[in-house]
Amino acid sequence: MNDRPLDLLALQRRLADFAAARDWRQYHTPKNLVAALSVEASELLEIFQWSTPEESARVMDDPGTAHRVRDEVADVLAYLLQLCEVLDVDPLAALAAKIDRNELRFPAPKARED
Amino acid sequence: MNDRPLDLLALQRRLADFAAARDWRQYHTPKNLVAALSVEASELLEIFQWSTPEESARVMDDPGTAHRVRDEVADVLAYLLQLCEVLDVDPLAALAAKIDRNELRFPAPKARED
Amino acid sequence: MNDRPLDLLALQRRLADFAAARDWRQYHTPKNLVAALSVEASELLEIFQWSTPEESARVMDDPGTAHRVRDEVADVLAYLLQLCEVLDVDPLAALAAKIDRNELRFPAPKARED
Amino acid sequence: MNDRPLDLLALQRRLADFAAARDWRQYHTPKNLVAALSVEASELLEIFQWSTPEESARVMDDPGTAHRVRDEVADVLAYLLQLCEVLDVDPLAALAAKIDRNELRFPAPKARED
Repeated sequence: MNDRPLDLLALQRRLADFAAARDWRQYHTPKNLVAALSVEASELLEIFQWSTPEESARVMDDPGTAHRVRDEVADVLAYLLQLCEVLDVDPLAALAAKIDRNELRFPAPKARED
Repeated sequence: MNDRPLDLLALQRRLADFAAARDWRQYHTPKNLVAALSVEASELLEIFQWSTPEESARVMDDPGTAHRVRDEVADVLAYLLQLCEVLDVDPLAALAAKIDRNELRFPAPKARED
Repeated sequence: MNDRPLDLLALQRRLADFAAARDWRQYHTPKNLVAALSVEASELLEIFQWSTPEESARVMDDPGTAHRVRDEVADVLAYLLQLCEVLDVDPLAALAAKIDRNELRFPAPKARED
Repeated sequence: MNDRPLDLLALQRRLADFAAARDWRQYHTPKNLVAALSVEASELLEIFQWSTPEESARVMDDPGTAHRVRDEVADVLAYLLQLCEVLDVDPLAALAAKIDRNELRFPAPKARED
């Protein structure tokens, strides 16, 4: 994967510029962005709501559904990045710290090391 | 921001290794991961549910709440990355394509270019 | 309000008959119904996601939005009733018990009784 | 089921009195109540997020989980009724109207009438 223009910070900047150019920043309170994030996560869930586990594993076989999944993944990530920007949260650092904590909280079973 | 160990792909790999070492991959159907993503987005929303817009903008002033916000942001990102891994979706490419489409769909007002 | 045909049990029976007549009961696992309930609650949230608190209080002034609100309220209630039916949960008894517990957990301030 | 005190309107009144006695009505904007409703629906989903369809059908076998399900069902219904009260929406009439519309939109298959 090429780091330009696909790195997270560059996309976060594009999203901020996009909203500013349309005068949408006024709507981007943390509360509103979190509500939008939660709505988009549910739109992703809607795709899977009646699927069996097996059907859910084959969701990308249909091009139309695959496009819809990618579109909703993009929306979730877009609102997460915009939320992080207005709150000055570094999402990658937050995730790295969380994985560190989880490695202490849920030690891997010893048998796995054999 | 240092690219190591904080880039998205490295974190996605850590999450996959973490789940595999604990034999949790069996639970990680796309449907279950999307449900978990949606639940975590709601836990983030819960922090803001009774706030005014103004209060929501000051949420990071309280260290305890700021920690909780970072923790839930990490959970949302963790499930989004795990979902993308099992579906073989590139989240950054999906977001870049979505921004491209939105730039055509919602042209920036001409007045903004003056 | 007339108790017939608008009581909760009668509507719950209509929903069960509706699903059975269309052979949809096979999809109505508790897990799927809960996912659908959560998706519908988010569709209700979507109506309000960019509103100020004041705008949200005037949402029923616009006939089109008022119709959409009633429609989503109906969807949330429909999935809640169908979930309760497959789980054999009495939603009114559950709510009455919860209010009882909350009255013990959050005693009303004494000053209010003056 | 005894209509007193378990009818929907009586429970809706108890919820309104409960909130008023604690001075919580100020937080009960439609937007906040919808956010809370969506959060509670997700707490219900959380119970089922890693379950197989078969496990989800046996969720009430465990008394602790059964209590948790009833508790979350109560929370969803509580916020739905409080939302309906502040918006002056009749949830039973909304649901009856929706079922009427769905019967036209999704006619039952003829074969079912044999």
